[in-house]
Amino acid sequence: MNILFIMYDQLRWDYLSCAGHPHLQTPHFDRVAKMGVRFTNAYIQSPICGASRMSTYTGRYVSSHGAAWNNVPLRVGEPTMGDHLREAGMECWLIGKTHMKADAKGMARLGLEPDSVIGARQAECGFDVWVRDDGLWAEGKNGFYDDKRSPYNAYLRDKGYESPNPWHDFANSGVEEDGQVASGWMHVNVDKPANIREEDSETPWLTSEAIEFIDQTDGPWCAHVSYIKPHWPYVVPAPYHDMFGPNHVPAANRQEAEKENAHPVYNAFMNGPVGRAFWREDAREKVIPAYMGLIKQCDDQLGRLLDHLEATGRMQDTMIVLTSDHGDYLGDHWMGEKDLFHDCSAKVPMIIYDPRPEADATRGTTCDALVEQIDLAPTFVEAAGGTVADHILEGRSLMPWLRGETPEEWRDYVISEYDYSGRPFALDLVEHLRDARLFMIFDGRWKMMHAEGGHRPMLFDLESDPDELNDLARGDAHEAEVARLYGLLHGWALRRSQKVTRSDAETLAGHGASLRLGILTFLYDGSEVPEEMTEVYRRRVAQDFTTS
Amino acid sequence: MNILFIMYDQLRWDYLSCAGHPHLQTPHFDRVAKMGVRFTNAYIQSPICGASRMSTYTGRYVSSHGAAWNNVPLRVGEPTMGDHLREAGMECWLIGKTHMKADAKGMARLGLEPDSVIGARQAECGFDVWVRDDGLWAEGKNGFYDDKRSPYNAYLRDKGYESPNPWHDFANSGVEEDGQVASGWMHVNVDKPANIREEDSETPWLTSEAIEFIDQTDGPWCAHVSYIKPHWPYVVPAPYHDMFGPNHVPAANRQEAEKENAHPVYNAFMNGPVGRAFWREDAREKVIPAYMGLIKQCDDQLGRLLDHLEATGRMQDTMIVLTSDHGDYLGDHWMGEKDLFHDCSAKVPMIIYDPRPEADATRGTTCDALVEQIDLAPTFVEAAGGTVADHILEGRSLMPWLRGETPEEWRDYVISEYDYSGRPFALDLVEHLRDARLFMIFDGRWKMMHAEGGHRPMLFDLESDPDELNDLARGDAHEAEVARLYGLLHGWALRRSQKVTRSDAETLAGHGASLRLGILTFLYDGSEVPEEMTEVYRRRVAQDFTTS
Repeated sequence: MNILFIMYDQLRWDYLSCAGHPHLQTPHFDRVAKMGVRFTNAYIQSPICGASRMSTYTGRYVSSHGAAWNNVPLRVGEPTMGDHLREAGMECWLIGKTHMKADAKGMARLGLEPDSVIGARQAECGFDVWVRDDGLWAEGKNGFYDDKRSPYNAYLRDKGYESPNPWHDFANSGVEEDGQVASGWMHVNVDKPANIREEDSETPWLTSEAIEFIDQTDGPWCAHVSYIKPHWPYVVPAPYHDMFGPNHVPAANRQEAEKENAHPVYNAFMNGPVGRAFWREDAREKVIPAYMGLIKQCDDQLGRLLDHLEATGRMQDTMIVLTSDHGDYLGDHWMGEKDLFHDCSAKVPMIIYDPRPEADATRGTTCDALVEQIDLAPTFVEAAGGTVADHILEGRSLMPWLRGETPEEWRDYVISEYDYSGRPFALDLVEHLRDARLFMIFDGRWKMMHAEGGHRPMLFDLESDPDELNDLARGDAHEAEVARLYGLLHGWALRRSQKVTRSDAETLAGHGASLRLGILTFLYDGSEVPEEMTEVYRRRVAQDFTTS
Repeated sequence: MNILFIMYDQLRWDYLSCAGHPHLQTPHFDRVAKMGVRFTNAYIQSPICGASRMSTYTGRYVSSHGAAWNNVPLRVGEPTMGDHLREAGMECWLIGKTHMKADAKGMARLGLEPDSVIGARQAECGFDVWVRDDGLWAEGKNGFYDDKRSPYNAYLRDKGYESPNPWHDFANSGVEEDGQVASGWMHVNVDKPANIREEDSETPWLTSEAIEFIDQTDGPWCAHVSYIKPHWPYVVPAPYHDMFGPNHVPAANRQEAEKENAHPVYNAFMNGPVGRAFWREDAREKVIPAYMGLIKQCDDQLGRLLDHLEATGRMQDTMIVLTSDHGDYLGDHWMGEKDLFHDCSAKVPMIIYDPRPEADATRGTTCDALVEQIDLAPTFVEAAGGTVADHILEGRSLMPWLRGETPEEWRDYVISEYDYSGRPFALDLVEHLRDARLFMIFDGRWKMMHAEGGHRPMLFDLESDPDELNDLARGDAHEAEVARLYGLLHGWALRRSQKVTRSDAETLAGHGASLRLGILTFLYDGSEVPEEMTEVYRRRVAQDFTTS
């Protein structure tokens, strides 16, 4: 079996027709949902690209792998999905984005060259690279955000899009009436069509790469097809740029009351430049139709990919996974982008199609179990026929759910984390940057955010307040609920996460080993044990050797 | 400056005359204490050799590095004292024991050969090896406990001690009247002198190696001189074997009341074979005089080393550190060996002599601050003139205390941890091996042991009960104290321990970096920022390029 592991970037869980979006039709997402299981309570481990992905790719919580924000290197040697899958006999390839930052210092300490096979895997988060393009070719006065080479920019230049940065000037910008580039960085411009042929834009380009990979690779493989879109810049080519308009924009899910006695960290984010940019209705009315157009394009390209699988017979032996690295506030809760833990940010689409007959019983169903994106790595290991290294992987295989079974002892809560120490306002909120950390715990009904540094928590009851508008921790009520959730969080914090070199099975097999290796620290005269256990010490006659 | 970092194995904090032992005179330990500072509240991070040492050598808590028990490999790439010191321009050498188990699987994954310089450092816990001998050449029906080559056994054979295992047959055994080996594994034998010339026994042998190292190495160096003794087998050559007798054996610090409603984990240990072996007074009367003889020999060899430093002028430029990896119950609390957190096990000697004038003010003093052995690595980095990587090293430099300063925000508690999943009784106490973990938190007065798996804690008030005989958590009193200590433990559990690839200083320097690299996610029309921030996007004229 192969695994087609498709990730979109910044795709909200509810911007799909199978998830109930009122205006956006995504028939190809829905098609996979009909063939498989849609998980309705899937949470990412951090509402930011890099940290979320490092969790997904390692199967471990952010505080376990430590790459807590964008461009914090994943430390050398941290085992990844690729390592686990190769051990199970499956290749693991990257086609698109990871946001992986190599641990150059750690690699140098271990003498690993980035251009060796081993070094390249370390530098590329355990993947073998078909093509890597993180899709963020921003430029500022200090140069490019991403200092690697962009295969997509090379592709565009090859296609005749002449510019120092065709990613920006063509794929992510429109054109002003006077012929100037209408930068996609400015929301006022994003109702314009991208200045590019649709088939050359990022999503079709990557889809073509994926098709080429599928055609040229024998397998068994896991292919991580990882799109940058619908991530900003929110620019989409025709005809997607005007498929949706302000009348398709849902009202922002926000209330003035949220600003009253707001949690200080929440307050800092909503009042930051990104939050305030999305306070503007005119911005939402520009951005959200473009965002929907980008998703519509993703859906069409997904259709293209599915058709190709059908046509080549791969649909019968390929597991398909559709998910995202986090959502997008889009002005909800007075926020833009991601960063905090409201569902529009921390919850993601998660649709899994398993072609095998064992999964027939669940096709077209939804599953409400509490799922974390770190569950994907162990799911894939099980799909590859391997044994899940549960002393390393902190997620749980979703296979039982796909077979319609309810696993014993499924988790009672999900965890997500956020390190805001990279935000300039961090030191206004905490004395030490190490305390600029947030933890979400959600048990299916109650969602609490804990903030280090002496701040109060936030608390939402999603049963009575599914829109998460009423932070119950502003008052004194619900103290028992807060205490209960803290109990769970603290239990989680004490988890064993770093004993990655020894499995419990190995520990169990080692019980009594030191005894059998002659460690006998409890003998008075040897009568405590059968003679055979001490015979190695008893049999010898002291040499005729004078010690003085 | 050089650092002579001497570690004894299983040396109790109170078996030194400078710490008040009633019968044992250790003039050379006392001599270092008079030249430096003796820390009276120094705790190891785990009361077991391997885990304790991995913490000391990495400067990190056990749950941070994961090598939680003997022979659990320290994962490849985990930064060590050696890595930090080499970065600060100081060599870091091993002379003796580490109990390091290499992460062979991780090394293979990274293509590291154990015989390369880099691979050898990975395999040897970051040290360059002058000589490594872990001093546990036990043999059983499954072979040797340690499958490496023993330099000490090679030395003995070279000296004519002919045997398959001269470590056991000569250095750690006496002779029966009939000429048979009187194995040191049996307590009944340990009043006999070891069947070896005193100068060939382990402690003098390693001291000679250390002297040779000092004479042949330029520096600046850190030399970890790491003795196996006074660790069992409790056998010592003449004249040390009969320097002490039953009349020098302190009464066991234990009461019958400790067995009543004993904590289940404590109960399992005290009733295990090692605990019960030390219930016997006749065993204590054999073992403790031998243990004291071993310490006396260590002290004499320390004197030899100190004299050599004096004679060579090295005393003026060498910091000396004396410590141990854990203590020894010796029958106190109905326990043998180590494993739990009573002071005789978890507290260690810690004496530091700093030759520099800055330390003149503290010579011959004691310091009662709460010290952890993970403080040594940052202390050494500071001594080497380096910058302490406090995003990796979880300890704190002790240098301020050596200069007579009281640091701001010194810690309020020490932590020690123990993973008993390797003990055969573990599954009698917990359902999952991952829960076979214990945590000690001690705030200078109250000491609590938390046990995972649903067990109650243990609690001692060392102010009213310095002998730790009354477990206050057996009753309902002191709930507030328990809750307070749990609050501290949970705060510690949520610490940031794995963000080892990015310092806070780097994070701070990066504030605003993505803005300067053109990530502008908050622009409506560009008027929000000075034009220079967007000029890279504004300056370009869209090409005459038809997108359809």
